[in-house]
Order: sequence, then structure tokens, then C-alpha cells
Amino acid sequence: MKSVVLPLVLSLVACASPLVAQDRPLPSWNDGAARDAILSFVERVTEKGGAGFVPAEERIAVFDNDGTLWAEQPLYFQLFFALDRVKALAPEHPEWATEEPFASLLKGDVKAALAGGEEAILEIVMATHAGMTTDEFEAVVREWVATARHPETGRPYTEMVYQPMLELLDHLRDHGFRTWIVSGGGIEFMRPWVGEVYGIPPEQVVGSTIKTAFEMRDGVPVIVKLPELDFLDDKDGKPVNIHRYIGRRPIAAFGNSDGDLQMIQWTTAGDGARLGVYVRHTDGEREWAYDRESHIGKLDEGLDEAAAKGWTVVDMAADWATVFPPER
Amino acid sequence: MKSVVLPLVLSLVACASPLVAQDRPLPSWNDGAARDAILSFVERVTEKGGAGFVPAEERIAVFDNDGTLWAEQPLYFQLFFALDRVKALAPEHPEWATEEPFASLLKGDVKAALAGGEEAILEIVMATHAGMTTDEFEAVVREWVATARHPETGRPYTEMVYQPMLELLDHLRDHGFRTWIVSGGGIEFMRPWVGEVYGIPPEQVVGSTIKTAFEMRDGVPVIVKLPELDFLDDKDGKPVNIHRYIGRRPIAAFGNSDGDLQMIQWTTAGDGARLGVYVRHTDGEREWAYDRESHIGKLDEGLDEAAAKGWTVVDMAADWATVFPPER
Repeated sequence: MKSVVLPLVLSLVACASPLVAQDRPLPSWNDGAARDAILSFVERVTEKGGAGFVPAEERIAVFDNDGTLWAEQPLYFQLFFALDRVKALAPEHPEWATEEPFASLLKGDVKAALAGGEEAILEIVMATHAGMTTDEFEAVVREWVATARHPETGRPYTEMVYQPMLELLDHLRDHGFRTWIVSGGGIEFMRPWVGEVYGIPPEQVVGSTIKTAFEMRDGVPVIVKLPELDFLDDKDGKPVNIHRYIGRRPIAAFGNSDGDLQMIQWTTAGDGARLGVYVRHTDGEREWAYDRESHIGKLDEGLDEAAAKGWTVVDMAADWATVFPPER
Repeated sequence: MKSVVLPLVLSLVACASPLVAQDRPLPSWNDGAARDAILSFVERVTEKGGAGFVPAEERIAVFDNDGTLWAEQPLYFQLFFALDRVKALAPEHPEWATEEPFASLLKGDVKAALAGGEEAILEIVMATHAGMTTDEFEAVVREWVATARHPETGRPYTEMVYQPMLELLDHLRDHGFRTWIVSGGGIEFMRPWVGEVYGIPPEQVVGSTIKTAFEMRDGVPVIVKLPELDFLDDKDGKPVNIHRYIGRRPIAAFGNSDGDLQMIQWTTAGDGARLGVYVRHTDGEREWAYDRESHIGKLDEGLDEAAAKGWTVVDMAADWATVFPPER
């Protein structure tokens, strides 16, 4: 009998991993209110017959990316990508030598280049992301992610992700959740690498988009990126895009800035058990400490509303035993 | 031992349904080239170690809805929904008594109302779909789908679906595919019922959209539908939206009209095994016969390209033993 039973047992284990005995869940999270709130929420919505039970197909958790799943200092990482693209593309654009924000960038003065605020950022992103086919753009992103290094830590950007959040993503998926990214970052900038890094497939990534067009080039169909903003997936745009892409209201939402406020409002306003979580950047030693006054990842209004509504606020310094994963 | 083994076996069977012995697959399909092409494609991409093997996560199949999964005659069913909404909303819109296309509609002259072509259709859809919250709209769709009847057959619209295509959806999913709808119809018009009817969850529905806005109403967040077209998911728009929503190129695409041509071009131009299928409406007895000259679901250019490229063309009269499922 043994030879028949063993493969069955192995097969069963393979397709029912939540049943496998586990060590302490969320090992990089210190004991405390934040960890408790997350674990008890997961327990509540998965307890069959319990008052808070939510069927697996409705267990949607949405995560902001910049500052929530990976770091966002001293600049959004996609901006470093765009800056590298400006340098790479400069030979084809002699006019950039005198045109702002490109001129300052090429002189290495990032601060001056970004003085134009969001408009300058958008202009840089358009100029460096548009014109290519989507396949070409994907190849460029893959190459950059494999080779670029964070200016302060020297680590690949994909190692500047938060170990406790990786564990949280796994914990949720082990309990039947589907995990989605809902980011202000570009959807096509994230999709090539989030599978490997977060275990999130491309079709569960929502983000900002520029317009694209379908074209035939020498009889071959391509999709070309156009220099025109399609949708900014930030603030009000997040619940709008959640509705557009997912078509269900999530039951859990994780963010770190005022840009995530509406997403958390929309998520927590639904019926039944809901979880709203803000990750607060309190750790100037291991990461960066910033909130109400920050230019990047400003968390001000959201912090007040979290207190008023009883959302969970993760204190990175106190709640996380580890911040980044070990170097590969 | 028996009491331990039996639950294990049952669990194993439950999570490995593709392995369960089956009757003849696609029972409502007659033997022939179309059925053979579909079955052999599925076999090829799922054969481990085979030259055409495709990992499960890449097994994306996209389906047009109107005319491919359900009927679309004598008018797109969403248009019947919109016409019913015009009647329901007329008391709040006295101006419609004299304004076209509403005036004709309210007099029962659908033909005159739609003489304005696509613009008239869009105006009707905007006027009847916008202004509500997304939750309100969903409730209206559910109510309509539960009560409305097709003007010629008297059946619920959700029974005007093609039995052979339901079997095909199941067959693909049993072989690890994920099935997506990519329709010119409204995404919010489809999502409330496609789960029950096709087994397709809301997050795997792509369609046309009108713009929406996030609002706080008495402290409660809502998403409101605006009277402005966001995206028309037809022709070129289909591959553009596939890229935007799914972020992977499908390996199989099913359509019935020239509006699906670019989706099939985009799908079949990828590397490896690909399947492009046109359902051709050849059965004037059991359904409606139309193609090159039809105002709805025109299939002209697509038919030529299918012949040139060797795509599969399903002849509904010859290939389908049954068209519609039995009445409930």
C-alpha cells in the first residue's frame, strides 16, 4: 500500500500548502499590534463557518508598490530608470543639451531637473518610455533591473524590497488570497520583474499607463507606446482603477502615503471584515524616516484618518525585525 | 488505513480534475476540422516535454462575447438593456419626448432611433448607464438579466449562449487555461453575470468602459459613472486592452467579426503554438446566418485573412450539434 499512498500524500500536500505545519508566521515581524491585526484578520476571513468568513474568490488584497513593497528613497526607483534612459538616449536627442529638464539631468543636477515638479517628471517619463514597442520596452526594463544599482546601498533595486512584506504576500496567498499591486508607478515598468520578486503575475498589476497604439510593421503586429498620459493611478485614480481592472472591492489594502488614502477608504468601506494598513517609514537607521513633510511618499492626511478610523499603522522601526532581505 | 486514504484520494481528485476520466470532449461539437484543430492545439500546449508545451500561467485564451459566446441578433443584447433603461428613465427625462434618438425609441421605432449609427448607440448607452454609482448600476444589470427576455425566442438572454462554447471554456480551463472575455460590450454590463453563465470571474473581463469618478457621499466612498467614453474595446482597441489588462500575449483567441481581427492577429503572431478561431454564423435555422454584409457582427476582412493565415473557421451549421443549451 505504501507505494500508492505516498504519492497521494505528496500530491495532496502540494496542492494544499496552507495545511502544512508552519513555523511562526511572518517571522520578520516583531510581536505587536500590527502583526496581531494582520494575523487575526486573515484568521477571521478564512475560518469556515465563522461570522467573518470570506470565500476565496473575494479574498483580494491590494498593495501599493513604492514605499510599501519596495523603498522609494532618495527618489522613486522608476525615476532612476528614466534618468538612466535619458543618458542612454541623449546621443539621439542633441536638443536635450539645452532643453529642460533634460539639460540639468545630463549635467547630473537631478534636483534642478525635478524642480518642475510632477510635470517635469512626466516629461522625463514620456520622453524615455514612449516611441518603443511594448516588447522593446520590456526588454529595456529587464536589462535595467538586472544591472542597475541603488545609489546609496549599491544593491540591485529588486533587493530593496521589504522582507516583512514579502512574507505577508506569501502568508496571504497561502490563505487563498490573490495579491494585486495597485501603484502610481508605470504598469509596464513593474510587470517584467514583479513575478520573480513578489510572486505577483503581470495580470495582477495595476498602475499608471501611457497610451499605446496597435500597428502593423512589415506585416507584424506591434503595440507602440505613445507620448501621452493615459491614466495616473494615484489618489482617486486607485479606487477607479481597482474597479476597472479587478471589478471587485478588495478586502485588504496596504499603502504608505496619502496617494493610497482613497484606495484604503474604498477597501475598508465595504461590508464585512476589512483591513486597512499604512506602512509608516519610521526607521532612519535601516531605511529612511519620513512622513508628513516628505516630498516623496508624503503621509499626512492618511495618518490622521488611520487614527480616526482605527486602521493599522505599521511602525517600521518597532514592528519589523528585518527590513531588507539578505543579499543574494 | 481506509479512513485515512479515502479522504486523501478524494482531496486529490478534487484538486486534479483534469486527470479524471472524461466522456468524449466537446460533446456538442461534431467531428470535423474545427473540433480537431481545437483539441489538438490543447493537446500540443499541455503535453509535458513536447515541442509545443506552454506553462500553465501562459495559457491565456481570449474570447469575444457578442456573437462568439452569446448571440447578438437582432441587436446587441446590451442595446436591448439600454432601450429598456430608456423606457424606465423616460419619466425623469421629459425632454426625450422630442429629442432623438430617444423620441423614436419611446415610440417603439428602434430602426429610426439607430439610424444615427454608432453615435446614436453611444448616446443611448451614455444616457442610460451614466449618473449612477457602480454599485447601483450592477444592481440594475442583475435585475435586468434576471427578468428580460429575448424578443424572438422569449428566453432569458443568459440562455442565448452557445452550448459548444461553454464546453470549450470548460475544456480549456480543465487543461490549465485561464479564459478571458475581451468584448466590445461594456465591462460593467458583463461582470455581474459572466461568472455564473461562463465561469469567468470579473477580473478576467475586459470590455469597453465609460469614465468613472471617485466621490465621497455623506462620508461614504462611491464610484460614479460619468457620461464620457473612456475606451472602446473593439478592433485595434482589443490588443491594446489585452496588453493593458492582461500584460501577456494570449495563445488562443476566439472571435466572430472584423472587430476581433486585430485581437486574433496579435494573438497568433506570438512565438510557439497559437490558435486563432473565427465562429462563422452559418445557421439561419437554429440561429441567424450573416457575415460579409451584416450591420451587426460583420465578418468580411477577417474571413479573408482567416483563409490566408490558416486560422480555424467554425461553421456553426456543420460543426455544432447543438447551438443553445436546454431551457432551465
